[in-house]
Amino acid sequence: MEIIETIGVLKKEISKFREQDLKVGFVPTMGALHDGHISLIEKARQDCDVVVVSIFVNPAQFGPEEDLLQYPRDLGRDSKFCEEKNVDILFVPSGYEIYPTNDDALHISFPKYTTRLCGKFRPGHFDGVLLVMTKLLNIVEPDSCFMGKKDGQQLIIVDKLIKELNLEIELVGCPTLREATGLAMSSRNVYLNEEEYGKAQLINQTLERISTQQLNDIETAIAKEISKLQDVGLIVQYLELVDRENLDSVSKIETGKYMLCIAALCGSTRLIDNYFIDIDEQGEVKIDRGLRIDSLK
Amino acid sequence: MEIIETIGVLKKEISKFREQDLKVGFVPTMGALHDGHISLIEKARQDCDVVVVSIFVNPAQFGPEEDLLQYPRDLGRDSKFCEEKNVDILFVPSGYEIYPTNDDALHISFPKYTTRLCGKFRPGHFDGVLLVMTKLLNIVEPDSCFMGKKDGQQLIIVDKLIKELNLEIELVGCPTLREATGLAMSSRNVYLNEEEYGKAQLINQTLERISTQQLNDIETAIAKEISKLQDVGLIVQYLELVDRENLDSVSKIETGKYMLCIAALCGSTRLIDNYFIDIDEQGEVKIDRGLRIDSLK
Repeated sequence: MEIIETIGVLKKEISKFREQDLKVGFVPTMGALHDGHISLIEKARQDCDVVVVSIFVNPAQFGPEEDLLQYPRDLGRDSKFCEEKNVDILFVPSGYEIYPTNDDALHISFPKYTTRLCGKFRPGHFDGVLLVMTKLLNIVEPDSCFMGKKDGQQLIIVDKLIKELNLEIELVGCPTLREATGLAMSSRNVYLNEEEYGKAQLINQTLERISTQQLNDIETAIAKEISKLQDVGLIVQYLELVDRENLDSVSKIETGKYMLCIAALCGSTRLIDNYFIDIDEQGEVKIDRGLRIDSLK
Repeated sequence: MEIIETIGVLKKEISKFREQDLKVGFVPTMGALHDGHISLIEKARQDCDVVVVSIFVNPAQFGPEEDLLQYPRDLGRDSKFCEEKNVDILFVPSGYEIYPTNDDALHISFPKYTTRLCGKFRPGHFDGVLLVMTKLLNIVEPDSCFMGKKDGQQLIIVDKLIKELNLEIELVGCPTLREATGLAMSSRNVYLNEEEYGKAQLINQTLERISTQQLNDIETAIAKEISKLQDVGLIVQYLELVDRENLDSVSKIETGKYMLCIAALCGSTRLIDNYFIDIDEQGEVKIDRGLRIDSLK
């Protein structure tokens, strides 16, 4: 595995692969790799000839009050993971490499999609994601890009970015990985103390209950579930059923593709989770919960 | 010459050229081609194996009060010009092709550069330019892109965009072409009536006078020249000497790369012009006025 820090060297290496008509898969991450990331890398390894993983804790997607400085970093451990998974190139650019002109940076936004849900509680966050993804996709020029469904809004926004910019990149949304308790894996789970960790399990249970029992009266269900979570001290930022096409909130389900999504503060840690829910013409409900790690063993 | 209307067909054609390792040159235009455009095409023809010209009157770069609907269009004449100049591909996408999702479009901005000079008087204009150029450059993926120095701020902003997005595209700024009177060629010159056409000549004369006689006391010169132009009824939006690196206004010149630039309303027609002025370490002044058409014959 080659570890590359500069855009120039990376582009040169990738152009060699392209000349050989090899299919390049790209997994953009912020490091602190967990099994969720590993599954993205494995999927890329399956689908592509060459796998490029980037680790870049993107300052542009953190708000001034957020956890940019505390965000877990462990390049030694991350690079060992990548090596074990036969990653070909690990791209670890510095901030200066990605944002050489800090004071006058480009702004990219998608107001209709970036100000809802997480965007409402993290103003500017998705603009930062759009900027770094536009840069990374132009740098790596992959055939396929692998991202997790856990960050559902991000996945939908990047999909729209790729279409808007007419990039010839296949975006592959990979299943959310869950601990045995159902808690969605996240680099931020390390922030949770024992008590918070216990409460965090309720988030997934909420999605499970609504999606399996209460889809018919979604507004009542959401109000009830929010109040339950608040009762145990979780602060719910949103709990919504949205249309995956346009992120519009939905109160009555018909045939379509939806995302039941939640963000809640558990202590000072912000956790998000979602289920992708598809309803076909026959009214059959298909729920994509992702994968529980115990079911994989 | 092939005339192509869709992104899919264009990408397919261009990928054939790329497989043959041919150098692709791209000239983005809004049509109403004049000698200024022709010189861009000729330069692309000289430097590249394949020349792609686009004609797209980009609605995103026109303000609500501006001349989108009146903007001169003559595809028959334009395509004849391109044919004569041995253009390989003329790309004429519809609005729907470039902006399939009109209501929720991506926004791209570069606040430090897009709100000054022309950006101040045409709010949103450069955001529209950035958006369409990001799209077109990703669609065509040229080796070189040819744009006129006449739209100096646009050239500088697109240069910064290409660097910010790490696109491997050489941006070639081509000289402003001028009529025998010195008036910079522009598709908008057709809007001028005879009297306005006479007054429009004063714009270039102003740049000439300041750059050759008054660079040492630029603030006084600018104030005096603005008042002269206003006296004959031209409404000067700006007349500034700016640093080409950062578009900052400059009141005292030293070694550096500058742009003396002007925008003025002549009747209801908005005209712009500029001289690129370089001052070397020895204090020698090099003025790039572009080319007068009479000097070419």
